[in-house]
Amino acid sequence: MGMVDFQTEPSRYRHWKLRFDGPVAHLVMDVDPEGGLAEGYELKLNSYDLGVDIELADAIQRLRFEHPEVRAVVLSSGKAGVFCAGANIRMLGRASHGHKVNFCKFTNETRMGIEDSAENSGQQFLAAVSGACAGGGYEIAMTAGHIMLIDDRRSTVALPETPLLAVLPGTGGLTRLTDKRKVRRDRADVFCSMEEGMRGRRAVEWRLVDEVVPPSAWDAKVRERALELAARSDRPEGAVGIVLTPLERRFRADGVDYPRVRVDCDRAARTATITVRGPAAVPADLEGIRVEGAAFWPLAVARELDDAVLHLRLNEPELGLVVLRTEGDPALVLAADGLLEAYKDDWLVREIRHNFKRVLKRIDLTARSLIALIEPGSCFAGSLAELAFAADRALMLAGTRGGDNRTAMIAVSALNFGAYPMSNGLTRLATRFLGEAETLAAAEGLMGQLLDAEAAEAAGLITVAYDDVDWEQEVRMMMQERASFSPDALTAMEANLRFAGPETMETRIFGRLTAWQNWVFQRPNAVGEDGALKRYGSGIQPTFDPQRV
Amino acid sequence: MGMVDFQTEPSRYRHWKLRFDGPVAHLVMDVDPEGGLAEGYELKLNSYDLGVDIELADAIQRLRFEHPEVRAVVLSSGKAGVFCAGANIRMLGRASHGHKVNFCKFTNETRMGIEDSAENSGQQFLAAVSGACAGGGYEIAMTAGHIMLIDDRRSTVALPETPLLAVLPGTGGLTRLTDKRKVRRDRADVFCSMEEGMRGRRAVEWRLVDEVVPPSAWDAKVRERALELAARSDRPEGAVGIVLTPLERRFRADGVDYPRVRVDCDRAARTATITVRGPAAVPADLEGIRVEGAAFWPLAVARELDDAVLHLRLNEPELGLVVLRTEGDPALVLAADGLLEAYKDDWLVREIRHNFKRVLKRIDLTARSLIALIEPGSCFAGSLAELAFAADRALMLAGTRGGDNRTAMIAVSALNFGAYPMSNGLTRLATRFLGEAETLAAAEGLMGQLLDAEAAEAAGLITVAYDDVDWEQEVRMMMQERASFSPDALTAMEANLRFAGPETMETRIFGRLTAWQNWVFQRPNAVGEDGALKRYGSGIQPTFDPQRV
Repeated sequence: MGMVDFQTEPSRYRHWKLRFDGPVAHLVMDVDPEGGLAEGYELKLNSYDLGVDIELADAIQRLRFEHPEVRAVVLSSGKAGVFCAGANIRMLGRASHGHKVNFCKFTNETRMGIEDSAENSGQQFLAAVSGACAGGGYEIAMTAGHIMLIDDRRSTVALPETPLLAVLPGTGGLTRLTDKRKVRRDRADVFCSMEEGMRGRRAVEWRLVDEVVPPSAWDAKVRERALELAARSDRPEGAVGIVLTPLERRFRADGVDYPRVRVDCDRAARTATITVRGPAAVPADLEGIRVEGAAFWPLAVARELDDAVLHLRLNEPELGLVVLRTEGDPALVLAADGLLEAYKDDWLVREIRHNFKRVLKRIDLTARSLIALIEPGSCFAGSLAELAFAADRALMLAGTRGGDNRTAMIAVSALNFGAYPMSNGLTRLATRFLGEAETLAAAEGLMGQLLDAEAAEAAGLITVAYDDVDWEQEVRMMMQERASFSPDALTAMEANLRFAGPETMETRIFGRLTAWQNWVFQRPNAVGEDGALKRYGSGIQPTFDPQRV
Repeated sequence: MGMVDFQTEPSRYRHWKLRFDGPVAHLVMDVDPEGGLAEGYELKLNSYDLGVDIELADAIQRLRFEHPEVRAVVLSSGKAGVFCAGANIRMLGRASHGHKVNFCKFTNETRMGIEDSAENSGQQFLAAVSGACAGGGYEIAMTAGHIMLIDDRRSTVALPETPLLAVLPGTGGLTRLTDKRKVRRDRADVFCSMEEGMRGRRAVEWRLVDEVVPPSAWDAKVRERALELAARSDRPEGAVGIVLTPLERRFRADGVDYPRVRVDCDRAARTATITVRGPAAVPADLEGIRVEGAAFWPLAVARELDDAVLHLRLNEPELGLVVLRTEGDPALVLAADGLLEAYKDDWLVREIRHNFKRVLKRIDLTARSLIALIEPGSCFAGSLAELAFAADRALMLAGTRGGDNRTAMIAVSALNFGAYPMSNGLTRLATRFLGEAETLAAAEGLMGQLLDAEAAEAAGLITVAYDDVDWEQEVRMMMQERASFSPDALTAMEANLRFAGPETMETRIFGRLTAWQNWVFQRPNAVGEDGALKRYGSGIQPTFDPQRV
């Protein structure tokens, strides 16, 4: 597989159609069988690969920013007889373990994004399921707040992964069944064992769908439900969207340059350094934010950072250590945060804040060791301080460096105390100080102050401080040590340490369900030569090792 | 490895010493290096294998039932210079994936059992750590409510699994650090990367231990703390313990017989059937319970069932389907439940209830498909109805069978509504009816009534009912279907569907941490020929695939 590019736009979509009808948008899945990301498989029956999901993620993102008038989104299929057959099996059968895991992770993030739109952005989703809706297809449907199923005796919903493929309904399927839709566990067990799926009244009684509708009433009912959902939205009246302009990017042999983000790859050290630049200036007011649009720093930098992280995940799997750096004026970051806080009730600012939140969550969920280096000239303030709080460790240089009289400073803003919850529903600082309510309260009292290394360490905001004499050696030793550890053990350790505290559907999907799916994706019963993923469609039954562990 | 036997008693211990000093018991780890369960490794430096943990579990159990006078338990080492070096690495390096997973699961259950003693049984644990306390050794220490570390400049606590072995501190270590001890996540990351561990004031400041004590004051301080803990206990005054008599067991080629439990193995069908017999009679009152002691049905049947389940886990890994059956008079089970409810404030009855709870949890956590068959002559009432609620599916025969005028009945008792929480802190019925508070309340209203299949189905207590005409074929088809699925996919699916609802430290250990550890245990970086577990101690560094997934 070549390089995976996460940037696209509607005019380039091959698999989705966006249609607008006043407050209702129609997001129609119509996968081009020839449009797979890699060779060797056809995307038949609206099955999907990562490329299909990249377009979906883009559409969800544009609906939020470019279409303030859209209050309800109808998910449907452009193909007769099939809603969506789920992830493409031949693709899964050929893909590396790493690709499968990253594909599932991005897919899960995209689906969480749909639910985030409904919860925080006033765009309610409706799944209008006509035709077979299986596996990942039903998992997409479950992201919607309301699932309608046409009662044509052929259309069904199904999670046939276990019987057919020896893997899990792992992009949220099992967890959404039990946690979101509250399907009784023994019924979930029966449902997940049925290749043929379920339809009709029983599907409603079992909570698998919200209603079944006869074909004669289908179009009218879908329209009626969409308008009902739209009426409940708090999207603004008469607002004008902003355009998410294409990112300016330049790929180098050893990295990527964006206007506000730079990625430098050191392959020998297996390290990528992401340097985030603070704003050069901030607008005066809300009108200024609107005029800047996609160029407004908090939005622009988040989009670049998101693309950079996704690029590293998929295209640079051997760079196990990601160093997070910043450059700029902390006061300007705090000024940008001030705008985001002052105008937080504005729809566009709301989108910008939630987008920043999602990008930070993507970083939390990135299976690389994350080390923040806080040095003179950096701007780990407010929103950018979240990078230090997201990191597995944050190292700060104390005092000045020879030939440079600047001192590294860190600062918290109002946005560190609520705007950016992690998957567990808590802010990074609340997670950090889980057993120390008083430390958290003390940190809140430091809002807006520039803190040097000593003060930051005393406040518990960094892991450790070193002065100039020790800095270089300590950082190098730490990085060499980290690079010497097993990549798998680190992935698993970080996945456990990053999310202390309460659990949510989201943490259960990324923690429990994903971990089990990753385990299954290693097992010969699924991926071996005689395993179900390889044998699927060959006419030969898979062979299973009967041992239970 | 030969058959693993989970039954033992103090006179047969090779690895632990129990010493009693009034209200304080001393549980001293002194592992016999030659006493490993299998050939090929020496249990040096108080390292352990499953056999060591079987003795620990037995000691914990006996302390609760046989020693009502014990109010505090001091965990210490009988070896100079080492508290415990953790799980034996050579054992892990040689063990099959299935053995490693089951070893970790039992070890986790035993540690949860220590915390259950402290929380519910008034036996407070104190870890008196003198000498190196690493990996699983520190995980044992963390089960105690109070950890003391001797300040002799040599004794340390450490979780060196990631750097040394490329696996996780997976028997609760990572989760207890963040959730129980509330160690800050970046400090946890540093600590889990240190081979050498930590000691002294920093270990206290980081919350890794609760106090450090100079050697000169050690013995006096340990004694003082133990007496303080004992003083806070609610254990009874002047009570006399009961003896946990050896189980009567007879192993057959195709099963095991206990007086109250029968296991029948059908290896061709990969199925084990566990038949639990209800009581033949119940005593009149609390005095009768005391007289019966270990023969009192709820205690006796739970001990037999526990042994049967552990036997299947370790010694019959290919029997992927466990059928749960009962035989007896439901009215007598309800009568036994009535005693357990009427005398629940008595210390012995409290132990019997918590023991039954733990055995049911062990069933929940057993990685086999669990199918309850509710037929005429069965007694799925009250405590035994939990078997049906623990099952992935419960099938009930409606009406009578040819030549038999009995009808299958099911009943709930007070004990189904609080006495037996699952790992998630909810009862099985509350988990079952997560989205349906009214269904749960309605079930509570049916307490004590014998319900036929129609009534049970209407109340949502069973998955499905079949009449005699269909029963045999439906059961056979379901079992054949189940046996045809991938054992791994079923394990992972069941682990996700069984625990809906809230999360606890316990579910996070068994759900998230365990799943990641199982994943790591599959990866060549840990278990391959060049992996860390195989290379450990050879003088040759492991070779890692640098790809991050």
